[in-house]
This record gives sequence, structure tokens and C-alpha cells, in this order.
Amino acid sequence: MPSRSPRSKKSSRSPAAPIAILTDFGYRDHYVGAMKGVIATIAPNASVIDITHGIPSQSVIAGAIALAQSWRFFPKHTVFVAVVDPGVGTSRLPIAIDTRADARFVGPDNGVLYLAAKDAGIARIVELRGSKYRLENVSSTFHGRDIFAPVAAWLWSGTPIASLGPTLPQMTQVSIASPIRRGKTLHGEVIYVDGFGNLVTNIDRAALDDLAASFRLAPLLVRITKGASMEIFQAYGDVPSGVPLAILGSFGLLEIAVRDGSAASFFESSEGTPVTVIVST
Amino acid sequence: MPSRSPRSKKSSRSPAAPIAILTDFGYRDHYVGAMKGVIATIAPNASVIDITHGIPSQSVIAGAIALAQSWRFFPKHTVFVAVVDPGVGTSRLPIAIDTRADARFVGPDNGVLYLAAKDAGIARIVELRGSKYRLENVSSTFHGRDIFAPVAAWLWSGTPIASLGPTLPQMTQVSIASPIRRGKTLHGEVIYVDGFGNLVTNIDRAALDDLAASFRLAPLLVRITKGASMEIFQAYGDVPSGVPLAILGSFGLLEIAVRDGSAASFFESSEGTPVTVIVST
Amino acid sequence: MPSRSPRSKKSSRSPAAPIAILTDFGYRDHYVGAMKGVIATIAPNASVIDITHGIPSQSVIAGAIALAQSWRFFPKHTVFVAVVDPGVGTSRLPIAIDTRADARFVGPDNGVLYLAAKDAGIARIVELRGSKYRLENVSSTFHGRDIFAPVAAWLWSGTPIASLGPTLPQMTQVSIASPIRRGKTLHGEVIYVDGFGNLVTNIDRAALDDLAASFRLAPLLVRITKGASMEIFQAYGDVPSGVPLAILGSFGLLEIAVRDGSAASFFESSEGTPVTVIVST
Repeated sequence: MPSRSPRSKKSSRSPAAPIAILTDFGYRDHYVGAMKGVIATIAPNASVIDITHGIPSQSVIAGAIALAQSWRFFPKHTVFVAVVDPGVGTSRLPIAIDTRADARFVGPDNGVLYLAAKDAGIARIVELRGSKYRLENVSSTFHGRDIFAPVAAWLWSGTPIASLGPTLPQMTQVSIASPIRRGKTLHGEVIYVDGFGNLVTNIDRAALDDLAASFRLAPLLVRITKGASMEIFQAYGDVPSGVPLAILGSFGLLEIAVRDGSAASFFESSEGTPVTVIVST
Repeated sequence: MPSRSPRSKKSSRSPAAPIAILTDFGYRDHYVGAMKGVIATIAPNASVIDITHGIPSQSVIAGAIALAQSWRFFPKHTVFVAVVDPGVGTSRLPIAIDTRADARFVGPDNGVLYLAAKDAGIARIVELRGSKYRLENVSSTFHGRDIFAPVAAWLWSGTPIASLGPTLPQMTQVSIASPIRRGKTLHGEVIYVDGFGNLVTNIDRAALDDLAASFRLAPLLVRITKGASMEIFQAYGDVPSGVPLAILGSFGLLEIAVRDGSAASFFESSEGTPVTVIVST
Repeated sequence: MPSRSPRSKKSSRSPAAPIAILTDFGYRDHYVGAMKGVIATIAPNASVIDITHGIPSQSVIAGAIALAQSWRFFPKHTVFVAVVDPGVGTSRLPIAIDTRADARFVGPDNGVLYLAAKDAGIARIVELRGSKYRLENVSSTFHGRDIFAPVAAWLWSGTPIASLGPTLPQMTQVSIASPIRRGKTLHGEVIYVDGFGNLVTNIDRAALDDLAASFRLAPLLVRITKGASMEIFQAYGDVPSGVPLAILGSFGLLEIAVRDGSAASFFESSEGTPVTVIVST
């Protein structure tokens, strides 16, 4: 295994930043455990944090959103590994990304890293090619263990990203539709349903402020398929139990929730369901 | 961010005690990951332990019981963060508690901390008010990330609890009904159903010993709705597969179990189901 | 509590190897949290890794397979604790095992440790009897917390395995049926269904190579109950979405999968379902 380069700029980084893992492996199997064993073998002092392993199976976009919504809460220099990888073993490339915010991302080039990396400011993308930085026998079904975990551990240990393989000019992108403004109405959609059944939309605070400002700060109402109009409240507890409400959620996006209940069940809604915000005057 | 006070008594505490987290966030989303990222940013050397994130959604009493049953197995000076918080963003206060057993507790003042804190001997309760010890932008829906995780990290780092805000005279209490003795019968109830379907009751070893002692150590029988009387066994394996039994469980409380099965399904029972213990003579 | 013996050979082991835990406790309860609290109390510097807690409830063989498939990816000297323990509190012994590969295993003597320990080369088996190395009050229902977690922490801290109790001549074994070769056909079975619904069989790469070699490297076809014959592909992505395939999985065993789907649902199959490999000429 390669030794740390004492001259690497990265070797002066604090060893305190963790390695953070996000996958769709679930909690039934030993797959995440095997990845952590590999990391502990290469970088025994690395602190490893689970973001979640509950991403819906093979949902690249859900993984991309969860990573984009959480990376900024981690220390600088954190190495993120995201493995939602339906194309494992095919021609899709394994990549690592360095960013202007100093966060580093490792995973398949299928878009799962894109939203977070774009947010953090992509500085360099490399294809993971060096056989020195992967397990000796690479399976065609579990690159999380055989390629991505080792690379994350080596990056954490100070290996310069340029050693990992050739620079790529671009990466696979995914996108979240922006809400569309038509007169007094903002047309958005549900992009993520969380474990409480809250419906997270693609409508952010700026879009709401913008709409309100255009109409003298008139109150806004939110509507989702088949539902009545809802006001935007400050807290789940501002309505009685069982009542739906709209709220600016913890990631700065408009959410639809039901107090002490599930908005996903209440409105029979999921990713893609249209949501509109209208000026109430 | 505030620096550690070198004169604080707490700064002499061993840094070895962990931060332990209990929530009802489940395992699907990135919410727990975001909390851990915040902790790692403020207290990069803190070891963080998950107690569980599987508390039934918004069940304050289930969270209170789980915390009360686990805190004593952790090192002294552990900082516990418990977030089961249906009232997040409303007038319920965020609090921290110091105890005579040196355990510290952080979370919403809705009772989720109460059973454990009472057990550990409440020494001081403070309202979390200091803006220095929270994230810059506090959402109204995710105080786990924005207030409780930062406070836990600062407490762990040596910040005196008195710096976090004004002392409160009391906190919100929850209670578990005590079993009631009537003649030869002890009337209790199921307070917790675990993931194996075991029914944990509010009847503890002392109540059983007391009942038996009053009747010359006569054998005791346990009965749950619609079920036949069961003896109290020493181990699940003392009955054949599929057979129900009563047993003194791992937290010193009477449990009803089914060997290799689920007592919750077998007896169609859940929290609140009456359980009686009778002297068999 | 016993102090570390400075003369123990084990005390010279790197403290960097982790303690790795595998259980069937699930993620709802605080049971795993309590085990980790116990470990943190005895060995505050130990790094603790979850292999999984999602082993199907009380399935000793599933636990044994998951441990056997993951232990080799961990650092040397890792202490593994596996608790799938339907006989807790009965006469089944608590044991610890040292191996020629330097991995150590702690758990009940019901076979859950056997496949991994055999793989690692059993060097010594001891019965956990010393009361110094367990909690003061040992329940009859939760040896994971009261016996196995403390023993793992003491082993990690340098306690020689011989101090833990008397040597046992043998341990309880479990076995996985080997595939049987009859002429041009290899008869195997499903031994594990993972969280994606992939069907892992008992047919390994060597058995496949052997079969092919006997027939001039003729192509092989795989068949599972009621299904058509499938080729062995290199990657899930080599077939269209929704199509079943056979593949050599990440643990060197033949798997049956469905691209972007669940083979367990597709074939209505589970552990024990027969799988055959036939020479296609």
C-alpha cells in the first residue's frame, strides 16, 4: 500500500475531519460493515459517520438530494462517500471530486455526487484508476467496499487526489426542476418524502420571498393535489393534531406536513406531485 | 464560537465520555447524519454513540423509557441528547440538565429527558438561550441539528452548563403508572413493546418480591388479557418454541415473551394492556 | 475491575483495531446502545463498528453467514461480538475464540461464531466464566450487555483470552451444505437473501470453474425453481431493467439478481430454494 507523502499539501490537514458515508444498502446486511472494516484497515484513526443507509434502493436522485442537504453541516475536509450505484460493474466511472469548500466526494459517476459537489464548488474531478488505491480483488458488484471505501480512506490519510487517476473534464449531472412562476402562482413539486411523511418541495425561501415581494408582501397560500389551501406556519405545533400545514423546513425548502401524522399518506402524494404557491389577494 | 474556559471545573473532566444520541428520526433520512456533522464540527474528538433512532415517531413516553433504561450503562459524564420533539418550534423550551450522577441531558422540555434525569438525580436545569451555543440560523423544525447537537458538543467540550442559559425551577414531567396491589393481586400494565415483540411491564423485581414475601413466598402467576396464567421463568429457553412465558427482563422489569416468537402478536397486546400477577395459593 | 497486565503479549497489540458488533437486535430499541455504553465504560478509547443489527430475529445461521462474509475485511486483532442468542439464559455456554488470523470472536456457543472462526483458524476456545469480566448483575435475558460486551472490551484492552475462563475442546458447529455435482449439473441452494432481494447461493467460484473445466470451458447456465435458464453476467447492468441474471457476487458466491428489482420477489424464493448450474452443451 502506498505510504503518505510527507510533502503533500493535504498531509497538513487536520486529521479531525471525518469520513461520512451515505448508501442505499439498508440496515439488514453486513455490506456497510464490510466498507467500514476496509476503512478501519487503511485509516485506523479515521472517525466514520453514517449520514444514512436508508436511501430508497437504487434511487440516485434521492441520494443526491440527501447528500446535498447534509454535506454543509460537516467539518471542512470531510471525505464523503456516497454509494447508490445501480450501474456498478458497467462502464460508469468511479470518481473522486475536490471542491473549493474543501469537501471531498467519492462515488460512482451517475449523479449521486453532483448536487452536493456543485454546491461546494467543483475544483477537480478524477477517475479512480490507480490500482494501488483499491482492494486487490475488485468484484463487479460491490465497488463501495472494493474501490470507494479504500479511496476515501487514502484521501483521508493525505493521498493527493491527483494520485488517484486522470482528471476528467466533467461529470454526470442530475437536476432538480426549478419552480416556475406564472403571474401570481409559483408551480413546484415534491422532490423528497422523508421518514415522517413530510413532503419536501423544490420551492426555496428565496422563491417565496420573491413572490411575496412582487405583491406587496401579500400572504401566500400553498396547495397540493386535491387539497385545500394552506397557510405557511412557523412550527408543526401551530396547528391542531392531524391538520396539514405548509412550513419552511430545516433545509430552507417549503415542506408540507401533517401535525403528528404523515402528509404523504394524507395527500396520497410522493416525489413529483405538483405543489403550487399562490398570492392570496 | 466560544472558546473553552480553562478555569471551568468541567474542563478537567475526562474527554473519554461519549455523546450518546436517541431520536425518533428513523434510519431513512439524513437527519441524524446532519446532527453528527454538527457535533463533529464543534467537538471533533468526541466519540458519538447511537442509543437508537427507532423510537416510535413522536412518542415522547417511549423515548423517555428507552433513555431511562439505558443511561446507567454509559460512562460517567456522558452527554445524552434525546430528540423526540413533536412541539419543535413552539413555546416548549429547549433545556439541559446536570445530575448528581454526573450524567448530562440535552433536549426538549416535553418529558423525554425526565425519567432518566430523575433517576440520575436532577442537580440543575437550564433553559438553552445563549445564541453562542447554537447554529447561526435556527430552523423552526429541526432543533436537534440547530440547538441540541451544538449544545451537547459544547457541554462535552467543557462549557459550564450555567453558561447555556438561565436556571429553571422545574421541568415537564412524565410518569409511568406504578402497579397497584389489591390483596393477592398486583395490577400493572405494558409500558413498552420491544422489537422482538416482548411486552415490558411496569412491574419491577421489588414489587414481585414484596408480593411473594407477604404470602410466605408462594409461587406467583402472571396473566395478560385473554391469556392463561403463566409461571415466571428464568430464561426464554425454559419453555418450548412458540410458548408464552413471563420473565424478569434485562432492565429489572417483568416481561411477557413468547419463545422464538412475538408476545405482542400472540396476545394482540401493546402499551397499556393490563397485566396482573397473582399469588397462586 | 481487573487492570491491564503489562506483561501480556496482547498488550503490545495496536489499540487501533476496532470492536465490531453484529446482532439481531434491530434498530427500534436501545439494546445495542446499552452494549455500546458498557464498552465505552470499560474501553473508552475503543472504536466500535456496527457490522449490522438487522440479522433476521434469532436466525443463528444468517448471523453466522454475515459474520463469515465480513470478518476478513476488518483489521487484524479486531474483536468481533456476535449476539444472535435464542438460548440466552439456558445451558448454552458463553465463549470467546482466538484464531490464527488474530481475529477474536465473542458470543454464545450456538454456531453463530463458527463459520467465521473456522475460516480464521480456531486457535483456542474458552468458556466465559470469570466474574471479573462481566457486569455485576447478569440478567438471564441480555448477555450481549452483561457478558459479551464487557468481555469484548476487556479483550480489546489487552486481557489475555486465557484469563476469561477454561479452555473448551470444541464448539457448536453449523454448516452450509456444499453444492453437489452430478454429471453436467451442479446442485446448490440459496443460503442468504440480502436487503436488495438478491439470492446468494452456496455455489462458489471454485465449484463453477471446476464444472466448466470438466467440459472444455463450455458456457454455464443457471436455473432456479420455475425460472428459465440464465447466463452468468459480469454486472447487474449487463441486462435490461427488470430482467433476472446470475452473477458472481461480492463474496465470491454465485448470486441470482434482478436488475433494478428483487430476485426474491421475482422468483418467490428464499433460503433453501434449489439452484442448479448446468453445462450448456
